[in-house]
Amino acid sequence: MLKVGIVGVGSMGTQHFLRLMTRINNATVTAVSDINAAHAKDVITPYKNVRFIADPISLINDSEVDAVVIVSADKTHEEFCLEALRLKKFVFCEKPLSASSEGAKKVVDAEIAGGKRLIQLGFNRRFDPAYQELKEIVVTGKIGQPLVAHCAHRNATYPAPSDDVVAITGTAIHEIDTMSWLVGDYFTKAQVIFPKTTKYSQNSNLHDPQIVLLTTSSGMVITAEIWVNCQYAYDIRCEVLCEDGTATLPRHARVNVCTKNSSSIGMTSDGLAFFEDSYNAEFQAWADACNNNTYCAAAASAWDGYCAAVTTDSCLKSQKTGAIESVPLTDRPAFYRD
Amino acid sequence: MLKVGIVGVGSMGTQHFLRLMTRINNATVTAVSDINAAHAKDVITPYKNVRFIADPISLINDSEVDAVVIVSADKTHEEFCLEALRLKKFVFCEKPLSASSEGAKKVVDAEIAGGKRLIQLGFNRRFDPAYQELKEIVVTGKIGQPLVAHCAHRNATYPAPSDDVVAITGTAIHEIDTMSWLVGDYFTKAQVIFPKTTKYSQNSNLHDPQIVLLTTSSGMVITAEIWVNCQYAYDIRCEVLCEDGTATLPRHARVNVCTKNSSSIGMTSDGLAFFEDSYNAEFQAWADACNNNTYCAAAASAWDGYCAAVTTDSCLKSQKTGAIESVPLTDRPAFYRD
Amino acid sequence: MLKVGIVGVGSMGTQHFLRLMTRINNATVTAVSDINAAHAKDVITPYKNVRFIADPISLINDSEVDAVVIVSADKTHEEFCLEALRLKKFVFCEKPLSASSEGAKKVVDAEIAGGKRLIQLGFNRRFDPAYQELKEIVVTGKIGQPLVAHCAHRNATYPAPSDDVVAITGTAIHEIDTMSWLVGDYFTKAQVIFPKTTKYSQNSNLHDPQIVLLTTSSGMVITAEIWVNCQYAYDIRCEVLCEDGTATLPRHARVNVCTKNSSSIGMTSDGLAFFEDSYNAEFQAWADACNNNTYCAAAASAWDGYCAAVTTDSCLKSQKTGAIESVPLTDRPAFYRD
Amino acid sequence: MLKVGIVGVGSMGTQHFLRLMTRINNATVTAVSDINAAHAKDVITPYKNVRFIADPISLINDSEVDAVVIVSADKTHEEFCLEALRLKKFVFCEKPLSASSEGAKKVVDAEIAGGKRLIQLGFNRRFDPAYQELKEIVVTGKIGQPLVAHCAHRNATYPAPSDDVVAITGTAIHEIDTMSWLVGDYFTKAQVIFPKTTKYSQNSNLHDPQIVLLTTSSGMVITAEIWVNCQYAYDIRCEVLCEDGTATLPRHARVNVCTKNSSSIGMTSDGLAFFEDSYNAEFQAWADACNNNTYCAAAASAWDGYCAAVTTDSCLKSQKTGAIESVPLTDRPAFYRD
Repeated sequence: MLKVGIVGVGSMGTQHFLRLMTRINNATVTAVSDINAAHAKDVITPYKNVRFIADPISLINDSEVDAVVIVSADKTHEEFCLEALRLKKFVFCEKPLSASSEGAKKVVDAEIAGGKRLIQLGFNRRFDPAYQELKEIVVTGKIGQPLVAHCAHRNATYPAPSDDVVAITGTAIHEIDTMSWLVGDYFTKAQVIFPKTTKYSQNSNLHDPQIVLLTTSSGMVITAEIWVNCQYAYDIRCEVLCEDGTATLPRHARVNVCTKNSSSIGMTSDGLAFFEDSYNAEFQAWADACNNNTYCAAAASAWDGYCAAVTTDSCLKSQKTGAIESVPLTDRPAFYRD
Repeated sequence: MLKVGIVGVGSMGTQHFLRLMTRINNATVTAVSDINAAHAKDVITPYKNVRFIADPISLINDSEVDAVVIVSADKTHEEFCLEALRLKKFVFCEKPLSASSEGAKKVVDAEIAGGKRLIQLGFNRRFDPAYQELKEIVVTGKIGQPLVAHCAHRNATYPAPSDDVVAITGTAIHEIDTMSWLVGDYFTKAQVIFPKTTKYSQNSNLHDPQIVLLTTSSGMVITAEIWVNCQYAYDIRCEVLCEDGTATLPRHARVNVCTKNSSSIGMTSDGLAFFEDSYNAEFQAWADACNNNTYCAAAASAWDGYCAAVTTDSCLKSQKTGAIESVPLTDRPAFYRD
Repeated sequence: MLKVGIVGVGSMGTQHFLRLMTRINNATVTAVSDINAAHAKDVITPYKNVRFIADPISLINDSEVDAVVIVSADKTHEEFCLEALRLKKFVFCEKPLSASSEGAKKVVDAEIAGGKRLIQLGFNRRFDPAYQELKEIVVTGKIGQPLVAHCAHRNATYPAPSDDVVAITGTAIHEIDTMSWLVGDYFTKAQVIFPKTTKYSQNSNLHDPQIVLLTTSSGMVITAEIWVNCQYAYDIRCEVLCEDGTATLPRHARVNVCTKNSSSIGMTSDGLAFFEDSYNAEFQAWADACNNNTYCAAAASAWDGYCAAVTTDSCLKSQKTGAIESVPLTDRPAFYRD
Repeated sequence: MLKVGIVGVGSMGTQHFLRLMTRINNATVTAVSDINAAHAKDVITPYKNVRFIADPISLINDSEVDAVVIVSADKTHEEFCLEALRLKKFVFCEKPLSASSEGAKKVVDAEIAGGKRLIQLGFNRRFDPAYQELKEIVVTGKIGQPLVAHCAHRNATYPAPSDDVVAITGTAIHEIDTMSWLVGDYFTKAQVIFPKTTKYSQNSNLHDPQIVLLTTSSGMVITAEIWVNCQYAYDIRCEVLCEDGTATLPRHARVNVCTKNSSSIGMTSDGLAFFEDSYNAEFQAWADACNNNTYCAAAASAWDGYCAAVTTDSCLKSQKTGAIESVPLTDRPAFYRD
């Protein structure tokens, strides 16, 4: 039974806490930390044997904590990861790995220096059944080599104040990691285009939608539309164009209703609910790996977190220059090849 | 240029008139008859060279009428068909061929006696591209021999007062002809089942929906749900189960709209609009055949009209007995084999 | 942590064992019984702390067994349920509750006599998200009162020798329970129709496909096509016709592939994989309920198992008579109302 | 009865000839010209009263020719349009209006000078029912103002040798006109991106696929993927993102076949067949307008042809520079507003 400590029980952290307590096999939460102590205590009250530990570093060091889940503010991820690495404890860290690509590099270097892969990054889509089927079709080559992919990442409304930076580091980052994983390549060029902005954009610092164009080292082009106030629903699209055909993510399976001259299916605006199965699967995979004293090869690593950070940096630069920017990445080091 | 006389310009007859005047190649309407003279004159006013002839028999005999379209009241079809046969003029007759199976038999006998196939019956679905694709898949045997078919025939609301008789002779008759054509077989047994009736049923003589079960001479079973007040749209379904797979009619191609947590396509309540393409195709095929002094093998013949009449008789009987009734049909005579 | 004993680790029992050991929160298997001792030992070998107990009655009585999962041969279910009831232990029993409706009645009577609902029956579709959405749409009345439902239950090939009895008691029984649950009503009439049989039918005692017609106490009609050698895939269909519209189960969400002039999605022939999510959900719900010393109201009860048994009896009778047979059921006793 | 002369009966011209002779109401072809006299004679042989006229200018001047259809080589369109304008005869001209934007401007100027709109350009998609429904949804504003559109234009294999120029002037030109029509705006910026090229590209001068990015005067961005050797089928996609939702072109309605663990619908590789209905509708609309001595407001005008030519010029420039190029267009002159 894996004993887990969670740092951060905001809305996503609370969901992860409940997931571990009620849905995951062979894991339990023993301690929780949060800057909002009152809220954290409310969250854990219904459950026995879960302690509140105010200081996150103390929680990470606690003897009843075998492994750490980091869902705190983005800027704290680097420090907590480094502390867990120092203690050689397993980590599940929500994206991003760090608030900067330099910070991400430090974590990668520390993990390599430690000689053991301990960090799993929370890029949940790698555990989504539809994305997994899509990857399987592409990598087996049954419809030929991939040339282009068209992606769309749409939030009904963004859950928190957004701006052009968050549109990339909080939203486009998922397409960046997922497509890199899906086609097994990293990006070398990035460009961001601003179409007319929706009237629903929350502030003058947010162009919405945006179109991100990414080129991989092999020349594939990914078009990723990022639209965080699309109003209609949470919606994720992906079509991969291969030399002999195309493969496209499905809509979720929902009951078809015919009424009033319309045939329709429901959609959800809740992004966490949309990917619920993938969150459960990634946590089960993480717990299973920790219980086996290893890492989950299917999951994103610290290196993947670093690559995402470097790529988002280039997107942010292009937002300002309007030009095609290079992405200074290199091939995956041996330590991070499965 | 085929010169056509039309008997009956009610709502469907008017559509056929306009079709011939504005959409069909190499045909034109020269004369129109209708019990409502004023309405008929309104219909033809915008068009030159179309005469109103009050008496339908006179219209059929008119020297400027090469071929006759019969869209008058059901009970008149038999008489007008017989007159056209007597004159050896081509006929397009809307279903049914006659108000009774005995009457239908008389028309068949007269046509055989005349030695020339002159009557095309208005079972338009034989010209619907989706039904044609479905038939092609079934008859080529690429998914094996057919075993069962599930059909549904749904009207948003029935365009005229309906009752249990009309539910069969005006509605189920389309499934009867279409499925017989699609699988190339005739029916030997019929049963009608009455589920709970919708509150939207127009009168106490109408059970709605009804389920018609038909068995072919080879043992195939057709389930045909007939629902003439389904409210939501005009909707036609058909799935054919074959030994190696199934084939299903598509929905019409309509733009998909995502808005307000729903992904939807529009549907129509207008049955004539729903099958517009098939009506155009059947009239073009009829005009082409008439211009070539022959009949259209792809269309329904008087024999098909007779078979439909005998089958509907058995359905009407089962509505009263609740039992499985036999359908007294025999194989197609040589005169009606293509 | 719920301590579970499993009776029967054939193919489905093994899946349930693995499910409890690797996917379910707060439950573990402590003992397993099976008539094939060698196989059972192979199944449990990778896991510590799971004992093999040859005698199922001993397993049920074991002090390390809090709750029992019965996945043994159909004819044994009644005896093992009665033993667990005697000991006041919770039971998860795969369908059927008993091999006969009389046996099912005995279990119901014993449970009522014991005064505590202890049995959850394995009608997994009640935990399928698509069926749950369908039921929600119907019971809220947003598209009016239900009138008819069309169901299809198709196996690519039946996993074991089948015949006309198994087509009902092993296959149609799912439609019987699910539709009864979905519309909150029980059946009063049943009829079975035999269309032409597929060449893939395994033996002369199996008509395949079959069409089962069921009428509820309120007059709804359910058409349930049962086809256990459909070849093409495992496929479950359900459309409910309500007064203002219809609601239809979706296909599973699968990647769409366009290649070679075809747009396609994959299907599976594996029925257990098809309903994997519902099996996980029903076991989690059962474990949660047991841990709370109560029953899961969303699940099927012994009474539901009894109703299914009485309905299948009437279907079997109709297979022989060809007639519409009555189903001798009454309203749900207070003990089984939630 | 409109008397039509056709210049050019290659594969598309022959289809238009047959269309006018067998599908269009109130029009007929009286004369045909083609550089391949033998072929032209073969085409007209089955039809009476159609003359072959070797010289296209003579055909345009012929007294039995009321209106002219131009389907000859692209470089000849300008000359033949100018001649028809001189004679004040109606013209249906296949795209492009001219091989150069300067030539297109000359035709526009001549038409304006003549004071009567005589030219209909063959941008057939304006008559496609799905595109018309899409436009209706967008222009009514029911899902808000348009912000972005994603298009794809895919040919299984290009019917003739293609290169980077033809990818724009023969293929992307359809997206350019259609999207301009759909959103009622013209383009101000263009960029072309070259992803990795498919191994099926026919020659070293063809990058395939290409991604064309167009910005309208109001700031909308159109992404148009052009892929002329996609292998799998002829396929046209379009999704319009509006402030309150999105609207997407449907696939064609095709029979769904389930067999061998796959649920599929057929696709066609024949682009002319794919848009058959729109070709028929545009010719009927043209014939109707000519018969009424007016132009069809729903169709593309010479001005639209000029706009398309200017836009394709900018795309061709971007192919060479890799940069975002301006499109030197202005608002529609009053003569071309409906």
